[in-house]
Amino acid sequence: MAKDPDDGSALPPSRSSGYLVRDANRAFQRMIEQRIAPFGVTRGQWYFLRALWIEDGLSQRELSARVGTREPTTVTALRSMEKDGYVRRVQSREDRRRTHVWLTAAGRRLEKQLLPVARQIVDEAERGIAVRDVEAFRRTITRMTKNLDELLDRKS
Amino acid sequence: MAKDPDDGSALPPSRSSGYLVRDANRAFQRMIEQRIAPFGVTRGQWYFLRALWIEDGLSQRELSARVGTREPTTVTALRSMEKDGYVRRVQSREDRRRTHVWLTAAGRRLEKQLLPVARQIVDEAERGIAVRDVEAFRRTITRMTKNLDELLDRKS
Repeated sequence: MAKDPDDGSALPPSRSSGYLVRDANRAFQRMIEQRIAPFGVTRGQWYFLRALWIEDGLSQRELSARVGTREPTTVTALRSMEKDGYVRRVQSREDRRRTHVWLTAAGRRLEKQLLPVARQIVDEAERGIAVRDVEAFRRTITRMTKNLDELLDRKS
Repeated sequence: MAKDPDDGSALPPSRSSGYLVRDANRAFQRMIEQRIAPFGVTRGQWYFLRALWIEDGLSQRELSARVGTREPTTVTALRSMEKDGYVRRVQSREDRRRTHVWLTAAGRRLEKQLLPVARQIVDEAERGIAVRDVEAFRRTITRMTKNLDELLDRKS
């Protein structure tokens, strides 16, 4: 049965910001996955590399917070990155429960190879969209995230 | 070391549409998870319910395509939904490898309870944003997804 989008209960995907965001996120994810695979990097590793390029030596807990993963997921990803030679995990001397993560030379070299890849994906996504529309988009989506985060923080 | 955002290699998160989309998606996901939990529905089930409310009786393969999951993930989610009494999985008589999924009365009833929840989350995300900005946002993000999907299709 067709639904009347104005009856207040239906929520057609094209009018749901959440649905559109999920769709776009999937497209970005598939794209990044495809483009970094030739460099031997997985999407699970990508977000941690990105965080470490911005700030090296973060603890596993801090990395989980920045990337938005639960700690077991973080540990699994970091172990694979250590095995691949991109990071070293070093137990803190002050607090043995804390493990810090440092990029190796190889992990650091990846930044020069992979950041242009990421930048190109963003360029491709934004192709044909006026700069002022891209800027308006960034403002709007940032505001949406902030709106939701405020409600989420209040709850937890 | 601080990076110059204009040097062409750095990609500060606030200027990366992909990063902003991922961030927003996480906020939407956490919110929906939090709000549907009291109804006994998980986020893994939510997307399939949503697809079935729009079109009941889809095959597992069709559902995977609509929700954007791999088939093993789909099967796991659908089994839990069958166990919870929201769907029935029925093997096709013409093609025994094909399984169709039908909402039960309970699964259908959830639509009336949960769509208003989803609609409210969207309203909360859009709070304080002018209607024309929300509409511009929808146009821009839809265009970004389309740009990426076209490149992804060409590749596969």
